Amino acid sequence: MTHFTSILAATGEPHGEPLAVSSIEDVAKACAAADAAFDTYRSTTREARAAFLERIAEEILGLGDSLVEAGSNESGLPRARIENERGRTVTQLRLFAEVVRTGLWQQLRIDPAMPDRQPLPRPDLRLRMIPVGPVAVFGASNFPLAFSTAGGDTASALAAGCPVVVKGHPAHPLTGALVAQAISKAVEECGLPAGVFQHLVGPSNDLGAALVQDPRIMAVGFTGSRSGGLALAKLAQDREVPIPVYAEMSSINPVLLLPAALRARGAELGAAFVASLTMGAGQFCTNPGLVLAIEGEGLDAFVAAATDAVTQAQPQVMLTAAICASYAKGVETLSNLPGVEKLAQGTAGDRTRGGTILFQTTADAFLANKALADEVFGASSIVVRCKDEAELTSVLKALEGQLTATLHMDAADEDLAGRLLPTLERKVGRILANGWPTGVEVSHAMVHGGPFPATSDPRMTSVGTLAIDRFLRPVCYQNLAQDVLPPELREDAKNDGVPRLIDGTLKLT
Amino acid sequence: MTHFTSILAATGEPHGEPLAVSSIEDVAKACAAADAAFDTYRSTTREARAAFLERIAEEILGLGDSLVEAGSNESGLPRARIENERGRTVTQLRLFAEVVRTGLWQQLRIDPAMPDRQPLPRPDLRLRMIPVGPVAVFGASNFPLAFSTAGGDTASALAAGCPVVVKGHPAHPLTGALVAQAISKAVEECGLPAGVFQHLVGPSNDLGAALVQDPRIMAVGFTGSRSGGLALAKLAQDREVPIPVYAEMSSINPVLLLPAALRARGAELGAAFVASLTMGAGQFCTNPGLVLAIEGEGLDAFVAAATDAVTQAQPQVMLTAAICASYAKGVETLSNLPGVEKLAQGTAGDRTRGGTILFQTTADAFLANKALADEVFGASSIVVRCKDEAELTSVLKALEGQLTATLHMDAADEDLAGRLLPTLERKVGRILANGWPTGVEVSHAMVHGGPFPATSDPRMTSVGTLAIDRFLRPVCYQNLAQDVLPPELREDAKNDGVPRLIDGTLKLT
Repeated sequence: MTHFTSILAATGEPHGEPLAVSSIEDVAKACAAADAAFDTYRSTTREARAAFLERIAEEILGLGDSLVEAGSNESGLPRARIENERGRTVTQLRLFAEVVRTGLWQQLRIDPAMPDRQPLPRPDLRLRMIPVGPVAVFGASNFPLAFSTAGGDTASALAAGCPVVVKGHPAHPLTGALVAQAISKAVEECGLPAGVFQHLVGPSNDLGAALVQDPRIMAVGFTGSRSGGLALAKLAQDREVPIPVYAEMSSINPVLLLPAALRARGAELGAAFVASLTMGAGQFCTNPGLVLAIEGEGLDAFVAAATDAVTQAQPQVMLTAAICASYAKGVETLSNLPGVEKLAQGTAGDRTRGGTILFQTTADAFLANKALADEVFGASSIVVRCKDEAELTSVLKALEGQLTATLHMDAADEDLAGRLLPTLERKVGRILANGWPTGVEVSHAMVHGGPFPATSDPRMTSVGTLAIDRFLRPVCYQNLAQDVLPPELREDAKNDGVPRLIDGTLKLT
Repeated sequence: MTHFTSILAATGEPHGEPLAVSSIEDVAKACAAADAAFDTYRSTTREARAAFLERIAEEILGLGDSLVEAGSNESGLPRARIENERGRTVTQLRLFAEVVRTGLWQQLRIDPAMPDRQPLPRPDLRLRMIPVGPVAVFGASNFPLAFSTAGGDTASALAAGCPVVVKGHPAHPLTGALVAQAISKAVEECGLPAGVFQHLVGPSNDLGAALVQDPRIMAVGFTGSRSGGLALAKLAQDREVPIPVYAEMSSINPVLLLPAALRARGAELGAAFVASLTMGAGQFCTNPGLVLAIEGEGLDAFVAAATDAVTQAQPQVMLTAAICASYAKGVETLSNLPGVEKLAQGTAGDRTRGGTILFQTTADAFLANKALADEVFGASSIVVRCKDEAELTSVLKALEGQLTATLHMDAADEDLAGRLLPTLERKVGRILANGWPTGVEVSHAMVHGGPFPATSDPRMTSVGTLAIDRFLRPVCYQNLAQDVLPPELREDAKNDGVPRLIDGTLKLT
C-alpha cells in the first residue's frame, strides 16, 4: 500500500486527499538522520533547547483553527475538547522548557578529589545525566494532540536532548501532519538539524515494528492497548541491544466509595461518577471502570443515581469504528460473565457511536473470574458490592497494577483510608481523594504510571515533568581535565544556578 | 542434592562440613516472609533504617578474622584484599545510611493546590518515591564481600526500604553464611521482622530461577557473566508481571593511549597497565581487556614495557577451578583468531591458577572479527594498533557497551579527547583519565553501569549512592487529607531538612 486516507470519525467515511504511507526505507532513513542529529542536538545549551520547545508551542498555536477542525473531524471529539487539548499540549511544551532551564534533570553530582585520603586517594568524580539517543514515539488515538505527535512523550524526549521519530496514529493523520509541520518549522527556525524531529505515517503495524527494531532507536514511548504495548516491548527485548519501552497500557482505575462519604452523599457521587465515566466517550486511560464499596444505604443511593444518569446518557462518537466495535464486544463479553448484572444502559450506540453501560457484581463473583477486571475501553463500568472491609481489601489485593485509585472519603473514613493506603501504593501510580481520575494534571508531582500492566515500567511516569527521566542515563567523569569535561561539570559553571550534589550534599547555587 | 561443600580455591579441594542446600520450598517461604515484612520495613523512619544499616556494618566487623579467613580460603584472594573488601563493604553500608538520612532519595515533590485557577482548579499533588518491594540479590563470585551477601545491591535495596532475599554465590558459602548471620543479627537487634533479610544457598541454577520467578520478588540485582545475566533477564521478562533485572555483565573496558601521553611515558604506562591487568588475577568487571593506540614510538615503548611486565608475571589463584578453566579456554580461543599475535605470556597457570597474557592486533583485524572483543574473564588483554585517529574512532564505534573507558592523555591530547568524548559517552558509563579502571570508588558521583551488554539497564548504576534509585518508584497523592498522607509529605514535615521540589523549585528546608 502506498497511500491511505483519513477517516471522518462521525461517519466512518474517508475524507480528504490520499496520504502517502511511509515505507520501511523511510524508517531507516529517519533513524539515520535522528542518529546523525543526536550529538548536535544534545549539545545545545539549556536556553536554546528551552527556546526550541517554546517555539514548537508557538508554531502549534499558529496552526489556528485548521488544527482544531482536523482534530475534531478525525477523533470525533468536540471542538472544545480539542481546544483544551491544544492548550494542554502547548502548556506541556512550555513546562518542559522551564524544566530544561532549571537543569535539575541533569542531576549534577561532584565528589571532589581527596588526594591525601588513606589508604588510597579519592579521584575527582563528576556525574551528569545524558540523553539516551533517538527516541521512537507512538501517537495515541485518544489524545490526538496531548499524547500524540507533539504530546508528552515527544516533549519530554526533546527536553531530555533526544531526537524523536514519531509514528503517527493512523486514526488522525491530518492532525498529525499539521503538528509535524509545526515542529519541523520550529526545528528549522531554531537552526537545528532536520533529524531532531521526524514523522512517519501509515496504517500498518510493520512500520512501528521496523522503528522499534532499528538499532539507532534507544527508547520507545507508547500509549495504547495492552496488546500493542506488549508487542512493542517484546520487539524491543528481542533486539541485539534491548531498549526500554515506556508503554502506558491498560487500567480500570478503581474508585473506592468509603462508608462515611457514601452515607453523606451517595446520590451526588453517583451522578458525578457518571459524568467522569462518560467524559470523552469513556476513552481515557484513567476512565473509572471499577467501583468498590461496602453494602449499605449509601451504596444503594449511589447506584440509584448512577443508574438514572446512565439511563439518560446519549451515545457519543468514538475515536474509530474499530474502537467502537471493540467496545461493543467488550461490553457483550462482560454482560455474559457469571455473576454480572446489568444495572443500566444509556441510549444504544451504533457503528461509530458508543453508548454508556453500568454493571454490578459481588466481591465473590469478581474474585472468581479474572475477566471481570479486563479493561473495556469506553464508557463501561462495574460496581463491586462488598460485604465488609475484608472483602473490599481482598478485591483490591486481587487487582492488577493500575494507573490510579480514587478514594471518596470523609473525615470519619480516614482510619480506613490509612489501612488501605499501603495496598493502594503497591497497586497504583496515583492515589486521589474526592475527585475523579479522568483529570490528569501536567505538573511536577504528577505520576501517570503504575505497576504492570498499567505500564510496562512502573519506575516512570508518562505525564508530568518527571517523565524526562525516562530518556536519560548517568555518565561519570573521573579525573578529566577541566577543558575536556562537559561545560556544566566544570568548576567555572558552579554559579550557573543549577543545583549540584557536592559530596552528597545538595547545593543550590 | 541436599548438601554441598565449600571448596578451597587454592587447591580445588572441598573443606569444612557439608552445607544444607536451600530447596525450592525455601525460596517460596523466603519470598512470602519478605513480602510480609515489606510494609513494616518500608515504614521505618529514615533514622531507624540508617541505624539498621550501620548496625549491619558493626556486626560484619564483629565477625573478626573468621570472615577474612573464610573469604580468602574460598576466593583464593589474599587476606589483605579481603580486608580491603570488608572495609569497602562496611563503608558502603555506612554511606547508604547517610543517604537514607538525607531523604533526597524520596524525591519529594509538592504542587500546591490552585483553587482559583481557570478554567479548572489545580488539585494538591504530592509525590514521593516508594520502594518497589522484595528484591532478589545474586552474590558475585569475584567480590565475596563487596558485591555479595551484604554488597552494594543488598545495601542499596535495604536503603530503599526493600526486603532482600540473597542467593549466595556457591563459590563462597561459608563467607556468605557468616555475613548472612551478621545481617540477621542486626535485623533482630533492630526489632525488624526476620523477612527483611534472608539468605539462600546452593550450587544449582534452579534456585536462582525460582527466586526470580517468584511473584513476590519485584526487582533483581546481579553481577556476573553475560550468559547468567541474560538468562535471569529472560526469566524476569517472561513472568506474568515482568520485573527489572539489574545485571552487571560483561565489559572489556577500553584503555585509550593518546599520542602525547604515549610519547611522554609509553614505558611507564606499559608497566602500570600490567599492574591493573593482573590485579586480583584479572577478575574485575573493570579489568582493562583492550588497549587502543595509534602507531608510533610511544606505542612501541608501551608494548615493550608491558611485554616485560607480563613475562615476569606469576600465576595467581583464581576464584574457582571452573573460572580458571574458562579463562584458559578464552585465552586459547583468542590466540587462534586471525590477525591476533601473542605479545607476551607470564609463567603458565594450572588447574586453579591463571597466568597473564597479552596479545596485539591491527584495527582492521579487530574490526573484521567481533570475537576479538569478547570478554575473557582473567588477566588477558589485547592491544589494537591503529594507523590513525580515524581507525581509532572506528574501533571505538564498533565496540559494544562498556562499563568504563580510560584515556591516558596530556594537555596536548585535549583536542583529540574532546573529539572522542561524544562517542565515549554513548558507549560507557564512566570515562576516566590518567588512571586505571579497576578502582571503583563508592561515592555519590560514581557510575558502575553502562550500555548493554555491560549492563542490562544503562539508566542505572550498581555502585555508588545513585544505585538506590534502582529500587524505587514514584507514587502521587492527590488531594489527600493531611492525616492520610505519608508523614514526609504532610505540611508539618516541611522543616525536616529534606529537600523538596515545590511547584518545580527546589527548596532545601
